[in-house]
Amino acid sequence: MDLVTLHPIGIVRSSRAEATDDGWDGVAASIALDPNRFGPEALLGLDAFSHIEVVYYFHAPADKREEVGARRPRGRPDWPLVGIFAQRAKDRPNRLGVTTCRLLAVEGLSIRVHGLDAIEGSPVLDIKPYMSGFAPRGPLREPSWAKELMAHYW
Amino acid sequence: MDLVTLHPIGIVRSSRAEATDDGWDGVAASIALDPNRFGPEALLGLDAFSHIEVVYYFHAPADKREEVGARRPRGRPDWPLVGIFAQRAKDRPNRLGVTTCRLLAVEGLSIRVHGLDAIEGSPVLDIKPYMSGFAPRGPLREPSWAKELMAHYW
Repeated sequence: MDLVTLHPIGIVRSSRAEATDDGWDGVAASIALDPNRFGPEALLGLDAFSHIEVVYYFHAPADKREEVGARRPRGRPDWPLVGIFAQRAKDRPNRLGVTTCRLLAVEGLSIRVHGLDAIEGSPVLDIKPYMSGFAPRGPLREPSWAKELMAHYW
Repeated sequence: MDLVTLHPIGIVRSSRAEATDDGWDGVAASIALDPNRFGPEALLGLDAFSHIEVVYYFHAPADKREEVGARRPRGRPDWPLVGIFAQRAKDRPNRLGVTTCRLLAVEGLSIRVHGLDAIEGSPVLDIKPYMSGFAPRGPLREPSWAKELMAHYW
């Protein structure tokens, strides 16, 4: 299949410089749009939404190993072996992160957010408004390890 | 900023071949993982989740115009002018789509889903399990045009 080449639209500014697993609510974060490509009109009306979805790139050294099969989330022996597409670990094919965070303020080309689990300098690939019409429909089901993993995440 | 090159992990198989705005619940869709790179272990345990998030590429002719400023969603004169990052239109920088859909079945390297708004042949860049811990937190707010736009979407 043809490769897909993306041009980051901006960058994450975060008080966290190293990837750690938990406690992301304590991190101050914003997204700075690339001023060479965008003006404030690209964000017009975004503040009518309470939340945004941020698509970003888990940047890492080029030789960083990417999981393509199954492993235990966080290496926890008490959690099951699950496929890389059944978990949200960053060492995954294409290293994309998708997180819905609360929009605090739009200030020119900068978007202040709460609950963005991306470290300083992460390339941002897209920003979308969170619409209730795109929420999951029907009853939710998830395994117990997924709830346990999230217990201290925020 | 450095370009980000992604290698599609699979492809959308859909009963819809042309991009149209509404009625996506009538579309039968599945995701076929690339058999040259992945085995069924990459999907191990995915069926413990009711929903998945699919990141895909809105493929289109290379000369297709990309909006970088503001426009009225669907060109509707009764809706406000909003920035491209305040809407989810496909003709956007990087042309990424992110949709949470219901998982119907995992069959080898194929994932049958309900509610995937991607046409036949769309490159798939990532699949993530939907965890309740990643749902938006706090009260939701969105403009009325966003609710109107979604009225017939599914």
